[in-house]
Amino acid sequence: MSAYSELVQRLVKELSRLPGIGPRSAERIVFHVLKLDEGRVKLLSDLLLKVKKEVFFCQICNNLSEDKICHICRDEAREQNIICVVEEPKDVISLEKSGSFKGVYHVLLGALSPLSGVGPKELKIKELEERIKKGSIEEVIIATNFNTEGEATALYLAKILKPYSIKITRIARGIPIGSNLEYVDRDTLACAVGGRQEIK
Amino acid sequence: MSAYSELVQRLVKELSRLPGIGPRSAERIVFHVLKLDEGRVKLLSDLLLKVKKEVFFCQICNNLSEDKICHICRDEAREQNIICVVEEPKDVISLEKSGSFKGVYHVLLGALSPLSGVGPKELKIKELEERIKKGSIEEVIIATNFNTEGEATALYLAKILKPYSIKITRIARGIPIGSNLEYVDRDTLACAVGGRQEIK
Repeated sequence: MSAYSELVQRLVKELSRLPGIGPRSAERIVFHVLKLDEGRVKLLSDLLLKVKKEVFFCQICNNLSEDKICHICRDEAREQNIICVVEEPKDVISLEKSGSFKGVYHVLLGALSPLSGVGPKELKIKELEERIKKGSIEEVIIATNFNTEGEATALYLAKILKPYSIKITRIARGIPIGSNLEYVDRDTLACAVGGRQEIK
Repeated sequence: MSAYSELVQRLVKELSRLPGIGPRSAERIVFHVLKLDEGRVKLLSDLLLKVKKEVFFCQICNNLSEDKICHICRDEAREQNIICVVEEPKDVISLEKSGSFKGVYHVLLGALSPLSGVGPKELKIKELEERIKKGSIEEVIIATNFNTEGEATALYLAKILKPYSIKITRIARGIPIGSNLEYVDRDTLACAVGGRQEIK
């Protein structure tokens, strides 16, 4: 044997395709799998397929859902005329936990990142425009991350949504609750001062 | 939804159990899986189970094998009285590629690492002793890595194998072929000088 058996090589190759797993970590995972109970491996193997078969991106907002339309888009108690745009399904979870938003979402499934080959076409931006074109949307809240990619995406969205003459807002930058000013970075501090609000 | 669906959560949990994968990378993998073709996911799911079912650790040397006894242990042309002890199956592959060894192997499936809870009982050391006790072994070459864990394992093996009055050797430390002396670390250089060999 001058290499692993073909079967092991194929598994290493497939695992290496997953994000964050290189050939070496794939090898480690294979050895780990060989040491596991068969039941445990079967569970993982089944879950992979089950999730792929039974979990979808919502056809309206691209959030994760076990139905074609997610329960947020279906919920008539929510304000269907305010869309909060986020990068990933996990951002929906964070916002839902905060309990601060009662509208609906639009998940872009990423952020603009020309260096990684992610342009507007790779994101669900056209789908967002389609939703706005239907006419009932009053406000789009852009809640992409506050890093380079997220900010670029926010600027891009603001530009292409301008013609629709709806309210476009960006969630606020500022000092996180519980922070000490001395530990907050300069740019955040500048934003917090610039965005100061009157105490009424 | 204040969290992912149960199905997604279960997959994230199972993936997080694999070495080198934390909850966040597990999430990234799940999103990736959702974007993949179903065929691709099925391939991965099937391979996981197939590898677990069809690849074993050789009952003699613990190398990876699709039979109970690996082809090296079965090969009568190899010197069955010289055992090379390595940490992992991948080390067998490296040594086989070097073409420098015609004996058989013993894979410990790890190295001593008390901080990670790996003691002698977690390694295939008793199995090595069993092989030696059978009496035909003449030499044990210790080829564990030259890092802290590998060196500790080598020292431990040398100590417990001493009573068997067989030849115990350690593969040589020294300057890698193709290296410039100026880039070689001090300890390696000291070992290389200490282990100098006469040119005949």
